[in-house]
Amino acid sequence: MAGATALIAGRGALPAHLARALAASGAPFVIAEVEGFAMDNPDGLPVMRFALERLALLFDHLHENGVTRVVMVGAVTRPRLDPERIDPRTAQLLPRIVPALAQGDDATLRAVIALFEEEGFAVVGAEAVAPDLLPPPGVLTQARPGPADERDAARAVQIVAALGAADVGQGAVVAQGLCLAVEALPGTDAMLAWVAEVAGACRPDPKGARGVVCKAPKPGQDRRVDLPAIGPATVEAAARAGLAGIVVEAGGVLLLDPAETIARADRAGLFLWVRTP
Amino acid sequence: MAGATALIAGRGALPAHLARALAASGAPFVIAEVEGFAMDNPDGLPVMRFALERLALLFDHLHENGVTRVVMVGAVTRPRLDPERIDPRTAQLLPRIVPALAQGDDATLRAVIALFEEEGFAVVGAEAVAPDLLPPPGVLTQARPGPADERDAARAVQIVAALGAADVGQGAVVAQGLCLAVEALPGTDAMLAWVAEVAGACRPDPKGARGVVCKAPKPGQDRRVDLPAIGPATVEAAARAGLAGIVVEAGGVLLLDPAETIARADRAGLFLWVRTP
Repeated sequence: MAGATALIAGRGALPAHLARALAASGAPFVIAEVEGFAMDNPDGLPVMRFALERLALLFDHLHENGVTRVVMVGAVTRPRLDPERIDPRTAQLLPRIVPALAQGDDATLRAVIALFEEEGFAVVGAEAVAPDLLPPPGVLTQARPGPADERDAARAVQIVAALGAADVGQGAVVAQGLCLAVEALPGTDAMLAWVAEVAGACRPDPKGARGVVCKAPKPGQDRRVDLPAIGPATVEAAARAGLAGIVVEAGGVLLLDPAETIARADRAGLFLWVRTP
Repeated sequence: MAGATALIAGRGALPAHLARALAASGAPFVIAEVEGFAMDNPDGLPVMRFALERLALLFDHLHENGVTRVVMVGAVTRPRLDPERIDPRTAQLLPRIVPALAQGDDATLRAVIALFEEEGFAVVGAEAVAPDLLPPPGVLTQARPGPADERDAARAVQIVAALGAADVGQGAVVAQGLCLAVEALPGTDAMLAWVAEVAGACRPDPKGARGVVCKAPKPGQDRRVDLPAIGPATVEAAARAGLAGIVVEAGGVLLLDPAETIARADRAGLFLWVRTP
Protein backbone atom coordinates (compact mmCIF):
# COMPACT_ATOMS: atom_id res chain seq x y z
CA MET A 1 0.00 0.00 0.00
CA ALA A 2 2.42 2.70 -1.11
CA GLY A 3 0.90 6.15 -0.71
CA ALA A 4 0.85 8.91 -3.27
CA THR A 5 3.87 10.83 -4.45
CA ALA A 6 4.02 14.63 -4.47
CA LEU A 7 6.17 16.52 -6.94
CA ILE A 8 7.25 19.73 -5.24
CA ALA A 9 7.91 21.63 -8.42
CA GLY A 10 9.94 24.69 -9.34
CA ARG A 11 10.92 26.22 -12.64
CA GLY A 12 12.07 24.35 -15.72
CA ALA A 13 11.36 21.26 -17.75
CA LEU A 14 12.17 18.59 -15.19
CA PRO A 15 8.86 18.52 -13.24
CA ALA A 16 6.83 17.73 -16.39
CA HIS A 17 9.25 14.95 -17.31
CA LEU A 18 8.86 13.38 -13.90
CA ALA A 19 5.10 13.74 -14.03
CA ARG A 20 5.08 11.85 -17.32
CA ALA A 21 7.13 9.06 -15.79
CA LEU A 22 4.78 8.87 -12.81
CA ALA A 23 1.71 8.89 -15.03
CA ALA A 24 3.19 6.08 -17.13
CA SER A 25 3.81 4.01 -14.00
CA GLY A 26 0.19 4.36 -12.93
CA ALA A 27 1.20 5.45 -9.43
CA PRO A 28 -0.95 8.16 -7.81
CA PHE A 29 0.68 11.56 -7.62
CA VAL A 30 0.02 15.25 -7.14
CA ILE A 31 1.98 18.28 -8.30
CA ALA A 32 2.54 21.12 -5.84
CA GLU A 33 4.13 24.11 -7.53
CA VAL A 34 6.00 26.77 -5.59
CA GLU A 35 4.25 30.10 -6.15
CA GLY A 36 6.42 32.40 -8.24
CA PHE A 37 8.40 29.54 -9.80
CA ALA A 38 6.02 28.16 -12.42
CA MET A 39 7.06 24.87 -13.97
CA ASP A 40 6.94 24.29 -17.73
CA ASN A 41 3.66 22.44 -18.20
CA PRO A 42 3.37 21.39 -21.83
CA ASP A 43 0.92 18.60 -21.00
CA GLY A 44 -1.39 20.95 -19.11
CA LEU A 45 -1.32 18.78 -15.99
CA PRO A 46 -3.38 19.86 -12.98
CA VAL A 47 -1.12 21.74 -10.61
CA MET A 48 -1.73 22.83 -7.06
CA ARG A 49 0.10 26.06 -6.27
CA PHE A 50 1.31 26.78 -2.75
CA ALA A 51 3.00 29.73 -1.09
CA LEU A 52 6.20 29.15 0.83
CA GLU A 53 4.78 31.46 3.49
CA ARG A 54 2.13 28.77 4.08
CA LEU A 55 4.28 25.67 4.01
CA ALA A 56 2.46 24.20 7.01
CA LEU A 57 -0.80 24.29 5.02
CA LEU A 58 0.93 22.38 2.22
CA PHE A 59 1.88 19.67 4.71
CA ASP A 60 -1.79 19.36 5.73
CA HIS A 61 -2.89 19.21 2.14
CA LEU A 62 -0.37 16.50 1.25
CA HIS A 63 -1.37 14.38 4.23
CA GLU A 64 -5.05 14.72 3.28
CA ASN A 65 -4.20 13.48 -0.21
CA GLY A 66 -2.45 10.36 1.09
CA VAL A 67 1.01 11.58 0.11
CA THR A 68 3.81 9.63 1.79
CA ARG A 69 6.72 10.49 -0.48
CA VAL A 70 7.89 13.75 -2.02
CA VAL A 71 10.28 14.60 -4.83
CA MET A 72 11.62 18.12 -5.16
CA VAL A 73 12.36 19.06 -8.75
CA GLY A 74 12.91 22.23 -10.69
CA ALA A 75 14.58 25.47 -9.75
CA VAL A 76 13.55 27.58 -6.77
CA THR A 77 16.29 30.18 -6.64
CA ARG A 78 16.46 32.29 -3.53
CA PRO A 79 12.75 32.86 -3.01
CA ARG A 80 11.52 35.92 -1.17
CA LEU A 81 9.03 35.74 1.67
CA ASP A 82 6.26 38.25 2.34
CA PRO A 83 6.11 38.51 6.14
CA GLU A 84 2.43 39.50 6.11
CA ARG A 85 1.46 36.24 4.41
CA ILE A 86 3.21 33.91 6.82
CA ASP A 87 0.71 31.87 8.80
CA PRO A 88 1.37 31.14 12.49
CA ARG A 89 2.34 27.49 12.06
CA THR A 90 4.71 28.20 9.21
CA ALA A 91 6.20 31.01 11.30
CA GLN A 92 7.30 28.38 13.79
CA LEU A 93 9.26 26.62 11.03
CA LEU A 94 11.12 29.74 9.95
CA PRO A 95 13.79 29.70 12.64
CA ARG A 96 14.97 26.48 11.02
CA ILE A 97 15.11 27.89 7.49
CA VAL A 98 16.33 31.44 7.91
CA PRO A 99 19.86 30.65 9.20
CA ALA A 100 20.28 28.14 6.38
CA LEU A 101 19.34 30.75 3.76
CA ALA A 102 22.44 32.73 4.68
CA GLN A 103 24.60 29.66 4.14
CA GLY A 104 23.60 29.15 0.52
CA ASP A 105 21.48 26.91 -1.63
CA ASP A 106 22.78 23.60 -0.32
CA ALA A 107 22.14 24.44 3.30
CA THR A 108 18.68 25.78 2.50
CA LEU A 109 17.70 22.62 0.66
CA ARG A 110 18.98 20.46 3.49
CA ALA A 111 16.89 22.43 5.97
CA VAL A 112 13.77 22.15 3.80
CA ILE A 113 14.30 18.41 3.34
CA ALA A 114 14.58 18.01 7.11
CA LEU A 115 11.22 19.76 7.59
CA PHE A 116 9.48 17.42 5.15
CA GLU A 117 11.07 14.41 6.81
CA GLU A 118 9.96 15.52 10.27
CA GLU A 119 6.43 15.81 8.87
CA GLY A 120 6.65 12.12 8.05
CA PHE A 121 7.29 12.32 4.32
CA ALA A 122 10.01 10.27 2.62
CA VAL A 123 12.12 12.62 0.49
CA VAL A 124 13.49 10.81 -2.56
CA GLY A 125 15.45 11.84 -5.62
CA ALA A 126 14.03 12.12 -9.11
CA GLU A 127 15.82 8.95 -10.15
CA ALA A 128 13.91 6.98 -7.52
CA VAL A 129 10.70 7.94 -9.31
CA ALA A 130 12.03 7.72 -12.86
CA PRO A 131 15.18 5.57 -12.99
CA ASP A 132 15.34 6.09 -16.77
CA LEU A 133 16.35 9.68 -16.17
CA LEU A 134 19.82 8.55 -15.02
CA PRO A 135 21.70 7.54 -18.17
CA PRO A 136 24.05 4.54 -18.16
CA PRO A 137 27.81 5.18 -18.14
CA GLY A 138 29.63 5.34 -21.44
CA VAL A 139 29.50 7.25 -24.70
CA LEU A 140 25.88 7.33 -25.91
CA THR A 141 26.49 8.85 -29.35
CA GLN A 142 28.13 7.96 -32.64
CA ALA A 143 30.77 10.64 -32.10
CA ARG A 144 33.34 9.71 -29.46
CA PRO A 145 35.73 11.88 -27.44
CA GLY A 146 39.32 11.95 -28.71
CA PRO A 147 42.41 12.34 -26.51
CA ALA A 148 42.19 16.15 -26.46
CA ASP A 149 38.52 15.93 -25.51
CA GLU A 150 39.38 13.52 -22.71
CA ARG A 151 41.91 16.00 -21.34
CA ASP A 152 39.41 18.85 -21.62
CA ALA A 153 36.82 16.69 -19.84
CA ALA A 154 39.18 15.88 -16.97
CA ARG A 155 40.01 19.55 -16.52
CA ALA A 156 36.34 20.55 -16.66
CA VAL A 157 35.44 17.93 -14.05
CA GLN A 158 38.11 19.34 -11.75
CA ILE A 159 36.83 22.90 -12.23
CA VAL A 160 33.20 21.97 -11.61
CA ALA A 161 34.22 20.22 -8.40
CA ALA A 162 36.07 23.31 -7.18
CA LEU A 163 33.11 25.51 -8.06
CA GLY A 164 30.65 23.16 -6.50
CA ALA A 165 32.62 23.19 -3.26
CA ALA A 166 32.08 26.96 -3.24
CA ASP A 167 28.34 26.39 -3.93
CA VAL A 168 28.53 28.37 -7.18
CA GLY A 169 27.38 26.23 -10.09
CA GLN A 170 27.34 22.83 -11.68
CA GLY A 171 28.96 23.38 -15.06
CA ALA A 172 31.99 24.64 -16.99
CA VAL A 173 33.30 24.82 -20.55
CA VAL A 174 36.92 23.85 -21.27
CA ALA A 175 38.65 23.91 -24.66
CA GLN A 176 42.31 23.15 -25.34
CA GLY A 177 42.92 22.90 -21.61
CA LEU A 178 41.57 26.40 -20.96
CA CYS A 179 38.45 27.35 -19.06
CA LEU A 180 36.26 29.40 -21.39
CA ALA A 181 33.29 29.74 -19.07
CA VAL A 182 31.94 28.78 -15.70
CA GLU A 183 28.29 28.35 -14.80
CA ALA A 184 26.84 30.79 -12.30
CA LEU A 185 23.30 31.87 -11.46
CA PRO A 186 22.09 32.37 -15.06
CA GLY A 187 22.56 28.65 -15.74
CA THR A 188 23.87 26.30 -18.40
CA ASP A 189 22.07 27.66 -21.43
CA ALA A 190 23.20 31.20 -20.67
CA MET A 191 26.78 29.99 -20.23
CA LEU A 192 26.70 28.17 -23.56
CA ALA A 193 25.16 31.18 -25.32
CA TRP A 194 28.02 33.27 -24.01
CA VAL A 195 30.55 30.78 -25.33
CA ALA A 196 28.81 30.92 -28.71
CA GLU A 197 28.83 34.70 -28.82
CA VAL A 198 31.97 35.76 -26.96
CA ALA A 199 34.15 33.31 -25.11
CA GLY A 200 34.51 30.78 -27.93
CA ALA A 201 36.70 33.22 -29.84
CA CYS A 202 39.30 32.89 -27.06
CA ARG A 203 40.30 29.38 -28.09
CA PRO A 204 44.06 29.76 -28.76
CA ASP A 205 44.08 27.49 -31.81
CA PRO A 206 41.07 28.05 -34.08
CA LYS A 207 41.68 24.65 -35.65
CA GLY A 208 42.37 22.88 -32.35
CA ALA A 209 40.10 20.93 -30.02
CA ARG A 210 36.65 22.51 -29.87
CA GLY A 211 36.10 21.81 -26.21
CA VAL A 212 33.49 20.27 -23.95
CA VAL A 213 30.77 21.36 -21.58
CA CYS A 214 30.76 19.42 -18.33
CA LYS A 215 27.89 19.08 -15.88
CA ALA A 216 28.18 17.47 -12.46
CA PRO A 217 26.57 17.83 -9.04
CA LYS A 218 28.30 19.79 -6.32
CA PRO A 219 30.57 17.54 -4.22
CA GLY A 220 28.72 18.19 -0.97
CA GLN A 221 25.14 18.44 -2.17
CA ASP A 222 22.24 16.23 -1.14
CA ARG A 223 21.72 14.22 -4.29
CA ARG A 224 18.01 13.89 -3.66
CA VAL A 225 17.49 17.45 -4.84
CA ASP A 226 18.86 19.80 -7.43
CA LEU A 227 20.70 17.23 -9.54
CA PRO A 228 21.82 18.93 -12.74
CA ALA A 229 19.94 17.93 -15.88
CA ILE A 230 20.60 18.06 -19.60
CA GLY A 231 18.30 17.53 -22.55
CA PRO A 232 17.73 18.39 -26.21
CA ALA A 233 18.11 22.12 -25.56
CA THR A 234 21.54 21.50 -24.03
CA VAL A 235 22.66 19.74 -27.20
CA GLU A 236 21.48 22.62 -29.38
CA ALA A 237 23.22 25.16 -27.15
CA ALA A 238 26.45 23.12 -27.10
CA ALA A 239 26.37 22.83 -30.89
CA ARG A 240 25.89 26.59 -31.27
CA ALA A 241 28.86 27.07 -28.93
CA GLY A 242 30.97 25.02 -31.35
CA LEU A 243 31.79 22.35 -28.78
CA ALA A 244 32.85 18.80 -29.54
CA GLY A 245 30.66 17.23 -26.90
CA ILE A 246 28.93 17.06 -23.56
CA VAL A 247 30.33 15.31 -20.49
CA VAL A 248 28.18 14.46 -17.48
CA GLU A 249 29.05 12.68 -14.27
CA ALA A 250 27.68 9.14 -14.21
CA GLY A 251 24.96 8.81 -11.59
CA GLY A 252 24.89 12.53 -10.94
CA VAL A 253 23.16 14.17 -13.90
CA LEU A 254 19.64 13.61 -15.20
CA LEU A 255 19.05 13.14 -18.91
CA LEU A 256 15.68 14.46 -20.07
CA ASP A 257 14.16 12.95 -23.20
CA PRO A 258 17.11 10.61 -23.86
CA ALA A 259 16.13 9.44 -27.35
CA GLU A 260 15.63 12.95 -28.66
CA THR A 261 18.76 14.24 -26.93
CA ILE A 262 20.95 11.52 -28.41
CA ALA A 263 19.37 11.88 -31.86
CA ARG A 264 20.08 15.59 -31.89
CA ALA A 265 23.66 15.04 -30.71
CA ASP A 266 24.16 12.52 -33.53
CA ARG A 267 22.74 14.95 -36.07
CA ALA A 268 25.05 17.70 -34.81
CA GLY A 269 28.08 15.37 -34.61
CA LEU A 270 28.51 15.92 -30.86
CA PHE A 271 29.42 13.24 -28.36
CA LEU A 272 27.50 12.67 -25.15
CA TRP A 273 29.75 11.03 -22.59
CA VAL A 274 28.42 9.76 -19.25
CA ARG A 275 31.74 9.73 -17.47
CA THR A 276 32.50 7.58 -14.44
CA PRO A 277 34.45 9.70 -11.92
CA MET B 1 75.45 50.19 -9.37
CA ALA B 2 72.06 48.67 -10.04
CA GLY B 3 71.75 47.33 -13.58
CA ALA B 4 68.97 47.90 -16.01
CA THR B 5 65.46 46.54 -15.70
CA ALA B 6 63.75 44.58 -18.47
CA LEU B 7 59.99 44.56 -18.83
CA ILE B 8 59.02 41.21 -20.31
CA ALA B 9 55.74 42.36 -21.75
CA GLY B 10 52.56 40.65 -22.84
CA ARG B 11 49.15 41.95 -23.82
CA GLY B 12 47.26 44.70 -22.07
CA ALA B 13 47.69 48.09 -20.49
CA LEU B 14 49.98 47.16 -17.60
CA PRO B 15 53.36 47.15 -19.43
CA ALA B 16 52.96 50.76 -20.58
CA HIS B 17 52.02 51.83 -17.05
CA LEU B 18 55.13 50.21 -15.65
CA ALA B 19 57.27 51.75 -18.37
CA ARG B 20 55.97 55.18 -17.41
CA ALA B 21 56.85 54.54 -13.78
CA LEU B 22 60.35 53.41 -14.75
CA ALA B 23 60.85 56.39 -17.05
CA ALA B 24 59.76 58.75 -14.27
CA SER B 25 62.27 57.17 -11.88
CA GLY B 26 65.11 57.76 -14.34
CA ALA B 27 66.25 54.12 -14.04
CA PRO B 28 67.51 52.46 -17.22
CA PHE B 29 65.14 49.90 -18.72
CA VAL B 30 64.29 47.99 -21.87
CA ILE B 31 61.01 46.50 -23.03
CA ALA B 32 61.03 43.00 -24.48
CA GLU B 33 57.65 42.07 -25.93
CA VAL B 34 56.58 38.47 -26.46
CA GLU B 35 55.89 37.98 -30.16
CA GLY B 36 52.20 37.44 -30.78
CA PHE B 37 51.15 39.21 -27.54
CA ALA B 38 51.55 42.89 -28.42
CA MET B 39 51.29 45.27 -25.48
CA ASP B 40 49.21 48.44 -25.61
CA ASN B 41 51.77 51.13 -26.39
CA PRO B 42 50.04 54.51 -26.28
CA ASP B 43 53.34 56.35 -25.65
CA GLY B 44 55.02 54.73 -28.66
CA LEU B 45 57.92 53.45 -26.56
CA PRO B 46 60.71 51.53 -28.29
CA VAL B 47 59.99 47.84 -27.95
CA MET B 48 62.22 44.87 -28.70
CA ARG B 49 60.18 41.86 -29.83
CA PHE B 50 61.38 38.33 -29.13
CA ALA B 51 60.12 34.88 -30.03
CA LEU B 52 59.59 32.36 -27.25
CA GLU B 53 61.23 29.82 -29.55
CA ARG B 54 64.44 31.87 -29.17
CA LEU B 55 64.36 32.54 -25.46
CA ALA B 56 68.09 31.82 -25.14
CA LEU B 57 68.81 34.68 -27.56
CA LEU B 58 66.72 36.99 -25.39
CA PHE B 59 68.88 36.08 -22.40
CA ASP B 60 72.01 37.03 -24.38
CA HIS B 61 70.45 40.28 -25.47
CA LEU B 62 69.43 41.23 -21.94
CA HIS B 63 72.90 40.49 -20.56
CA GLU B 64 74.46 42.61 -23.31
CA ASN B 65 72.20 45.49 -22.31
CA GLY B 66 73.25 45.33 -18.67
CA VAL B 67 69.92 43.96 -17.48
CA THR B 68 70.05 42.47 -13.99
CA ARG B 69 66.37 42.47 -13.07
CA VAL B 70 63.25 41.51 -14.97
CA VAL B 71 59.56 42.18 -14.45
CA MET B 72 56.99 40.08 -16.27
CA VAL B 73 53.81 42.01 -16.99
CA GLY B 74 50.86 41.63 -19.27
CA ALA B 75 49.01 38.58 -20.49
CA VAL B 76 50.69 35.73 -22.36
CA THR B 77 47.93 33.15 -22.51
CA ARG B 78 48.90 29.66 -23.58
CA PRO B 79 51.39 30.58 -26.33
CA ARG B 80 52.03 28.18 -29.18
CA LEU B 81 55.54 27.21 -30.27
CA ASP B 82 56.64 26.67 -33.87
CA PRO B 83 59.08 23.74 -33.66
CA GLU B 84 60.98 24.83 -36.77
CA ARG B 85 61.88 28.17 -35.19
CA ILE B 86 63.32 26.77 -31.97
CA ASP B 87 67.07 27.39 -31.78
CA PRO B 88 69.34 24.69 -30.31
CA ARG B 89 70.02 26.42 -26.99
CA THR B 90 66.36 27.18 -26.40
CA ALA B 91 65.58 23.57 -27.28
CA GLN B 92 67.60 22.54 -24.23
CA LEU B 93 65.34 24.66 -22.01
CA LEU B 94 62.14 23.13 -23.32
CA PRO B 95 62.19 19.97 -21.20
CA ARG B 96 61.76 22.29 -18.22
CA ILE B 97 58.80 24.17 -19.68
CA VAL B 98 56.77 21.55 -21.50
CA PRO B 99 55.70 19.49 -18.46
CA ALA B 100 54.66 22.68 -16.68
CA LEU B 101 52.47 23.74 -19.60
CA ALA B 102 50.26 20.74 -18.98
CA GLN B 103 49.85 21.77 -15.34
CA GLY B 104 48.35 25.16 -16.09
CA ASP B 105 49.25 28.81 -16.06
CA ASP B 106 50.69 28.94 -12.56
CA ALA B 107 53.08 26.05 -13.12
CA THR B 108 54.19 27.47 -16.47
CA LEU B 109 54.97 30.84 -14.96
CA ARG B 110 56.92 29.26 -12.12
CA ALA B 111 59.00 27.30 -14.64
CA VAL B 112 59.70 30.40 -16.73
CA ILE B 113 60.66 32.38 -13.64
CA ALA B 114 63.09 29.65 -12.65
CA LEU B 115 64.77 29.83 -16.07
CA PHE B 116 65.31 33.59 -15.77
CA GLU B 117 66.67 33.19 -12.25
CA GLU B 118 69.13 30.50 -13.33
CA GLU B 119 70.33 32.90 -16.00
CA GLY B 120 71.24 35.29 -13.19
CA PHE B 121 68.34 37.70 -13.43
CA ALA B 122 66.40 38.83 -10.38
CA VAL B 123 62.68 38.37 -11.07
CA VAL B 124 60.63 40.97 -9.23
CA GLY B 125 56.97 41.93 -9.13
CA ALA B 126 55.51 45.02 -10.74
CA GLU B 127 55.05 46.63 -7.35
CA ALA B 128 58.83 46.45 -6.73
CA VAL B 129 59.29 48.70 -9.76
CA ALA B 130 56.25 50.89 -9.22
CA PRO B 131 55.10 50.73 -5.58
CA ASP B 132 52.35 53.24 -6.33
CA LEU B 133 50.56 50.54 -8.32
CA LEU B 134 49.58 48.77 -5.08
CA PRO B 135 46.79 50.83 -3.53
CA PRO B 136 46.58 51.32 0.25
CA PRO B 137 43.93 49.37 2.17
CA GLY B 138 40.59 51.01 2.77
CA VAL B 139 37.75 52.57 0.82
CA LEU B 140 39.23 54.99 -1.71
CA THR B 141 35.99 56.57 -2.92
CA GLN B 142 33.22 58.80 -1.63
CA ALA B 143 30.74 55.91 -1.90
CA ARG B 144 31.20 53.28 0.80
CA PRO B 145 30.04 49.67 0.97
CA GLY B 146 26.91 49.05 3.04
CA PRO B 147 26.18 45.89 5.04
CA ALA B 148 24.73 44.05 2.02
CA ASP B 149 27.78 45.01 -0.06
CA GLU B 150 30.06 43.73 2.69
CA ARG B 151 28.26 40.38 2.63
CA ASP B 152 28.47 40.23 -1.16
CA ALA B 153 32.17 41.08 -0.97
CA ALA B 154 32.86 38.31 1.56
CA ARG B 155 31.06 35.79 -0.63
CA ALA B 156 32.88 36.97 -3.76
CA VAL B 157 36.26 36.69 -2.01
CA GLN B 158 35.42 33.11 -1.06
CA ILE B 159 34.41 32.24 -4.64
CA VAL B 160 37.50 33.80 -6.18
CA ALA B 161 39.67 31.82 -3.77
CA ALA B 162 37.96 28.56 -4.75
CA LEU B 163 38.34 29.38 -8.44
CA GLY B 164 41.91 30.42 -8.06
CA ALA B 165 42.73 27.14 -6.35
CA ALA B 166 41.47 25.47 -9.55
CA ASP B 167 43.66 27.86 -11.60
CA VAL B 168 40.60 29.26 -13.40
CA GLY B 169 40.36 33.00 -12.92
CA GLN B 170 40.82 35.93 -10.60
CA GLY B 171 37.39 37.49 -10.42
CA ALA B 172 33.69 37.04 -9.69
CA VAL B 173 30.50 39.08 -9.45
CA VAL B 174 28.14 38.56 -6.50
CA ALA B 175 24.84 40.34 -5.87
CA GLN B 176 22.38 39.68 -3.04
CA GLY B 177 24.51 36.72 -1.99
CA LEU B 178 24.28 35.07 -5.42
CA CYS B 179 27.10 34.49 -7.86
CA LEU B 180 26.11 36.16 -11.14
CA ALA B 181 29.35 35.51 -12.99
CA VAL B 182 32.79 34.02 -12.68
CA GLU B 183 35.88 35.12 -14.57
CA ALA B 184 37.35 32.63 -17.02
CA LEU B 185 39.70 32.99 -19.99
CA PRO B 186 37.92 35.98 -21.62
CA GLY B 187 38.78 38.14 -18.61
CA THR B 188 37.25 40.74 -16.34
CA ASP B 189 35.85 43.14 -18.92
CA ALA B 190 34.10 40.32 -20.79
CA MET B 191 32.63 39.04 -17.51
CA LEU B 192 31.32 42.50 -16.63
CA ALA B 193 29.88 43.00 -20.11
CA TRP B 194 28.02 39.73 -19.69
CA VAL B 195 26.62 40.90 -16.34
CA ALA B 196 25.49 44.13 -18.02
CA GLU B 197 23.78 42.33 -20.88
CA VAL B 198 22.54 39.05 -19.41
CA ALA B 199 23.40 37.95 -15.91
CA GLY B 200 22.44 41.19 -14.16
CA ALA B 201 18.77 40.47 -14.84
CA CYS B 202 19.05 37.43 -12.54
CA ARG B 203 19.25 39.53 -9.39
CA PRO B 204 16.26 38.24 -7.38
CA ASP B 205 15.25 41.66 -6.04
CA PRO B 206 15.47 44.39 -8.69
CA LYS B 207 15.54 47.00 -5.94
CA GLY B 208 17.98 45.08 -3.72
CA ALA B 209 21.75 45.26 -3.41
CA ARG B 210 23.35 45.82 -6.81
CA GLY B 211 26.37 43.65 -6.12
CA VAL B 212 30.13 43.83 -6.35
CA VAL B 213 32.91 42.65 -8.60
CA CYS B 214 35.84 41.18 -6.71
CA LYS B 215 39.40 40.73 -7.98
CA ALA B 216 42.09 38.82 -6.10
CA PRO B 217 45.17 36.75 -6.95
CA LYS B 218 44.97 32.98 -6.97
CA PRO B 219 45.82 31.55 -3.54
CA GLY B 220 48.83 29.57 -4.76
CA GLN B 221 50.24 31.87 -7.40
CA ASP B 222 53.70 33.43 -7.47
CA ARG B 223 52.85 37.04 -6.71
CA ARG B 224 55.76 38.32 -8.77
CA VAL B 225 53.80 37.65 -11.96
CA ASP B 226 50.25 37.84 -13.16
CA LEU B 227 48.82 39.93 -10.33
CA PRO B 228 45.33 41.02 -11.34
CA ALA B 229 44.93 44.69 -12.20
CA ILE B 230 42.07 47.16 -12.37
CA GLY B 231 41.86 50.63 -13.85
CA PRO B 232 39.50 53.22 -15.34
CA ALA B 233 38.08 50.70 -17.82
CA THR B 234 37.15 48.39 -14.95
CA VAL B 235 35.16 51.17 -13.32
CA GLU B 236 33.28 51.90 -16.55
CA ALA B 237 32.51 48.21 -17.05
CA ALA B 238 31.37 47.79 -13.43
CA ALA B 239 29.11 50.84 -13.77
CA ARG B 240 27.56 49.46 -16.97
CA ALA B 241 26.97 46.18 -15.10
CA GLY B 242 24.94 48.12 -12.53
CA LEU B 243 27.22 47.16 -9.64
CA ALA B 244 27.56 49.04 -6.38
CA GLY B 245 31.32 48.78 -6.26
CA ILE B 246 34.66 47.08 -6.80
CA VAL B 247 36.48 45.03 -4.17
CA VAL B 248 40.14 44.10 -4.51
CA GLU B 249 42.41 42.19 -2.17
CA ALA B 250 44.84 44.49 -0.38
CA GLY B 251 48.40 43.85 -1.53
CA GLY B 252 47.27 41.54 -4.30
CA VAL B 253 45.76 43.70 -7.04
CA LEU B 254 47.40 46.47 -9.05
CA LEU B 255 45.59 49.76 -9.55
CA LEU B 256 46.42 51.41 -12.87
CA ASP B 257 46.03 55.18 -13.14
CA PRO B 258 44.74 55.57 -9.55
CA ALA B 259 43.61 59.21 -9.74
CA GLU B 260 41.59 58.67 -12.91
CA THR B 261 40.16 55.37 -11.64
CA ILE B 262 38.98 56.91 -8.36
CA ALA B 263 37.62 60.01 -10.11
CA ARG B 264 35.55 57.88 -12.47
CA ALA B 265 34.28 55.74 -9.60
CA ASP B 266 33.22 58.89 -7.75
CA ARG B 267 31.44 60.22 -10.83
CA ALA B 268 29.61 56.91 -11.24
CA GLY B 269 28.80 56.61 -7.52
CA LEU B 270 30.72 53.33 -7.17
CA PHE B 271 32.88 52.38 -4.22
CA LEU B 272 36.41 51.05 -4.62
CA TRP B 273 37.32 49.00 -1.59
CA VAL B 274 40.86 47.67 -1.04
CA ARG B 275 39.91 44.93 1.37
CA THR B 276 42.28 43.39 3.89
CA PRO B 277 41.76 39.60 3.85
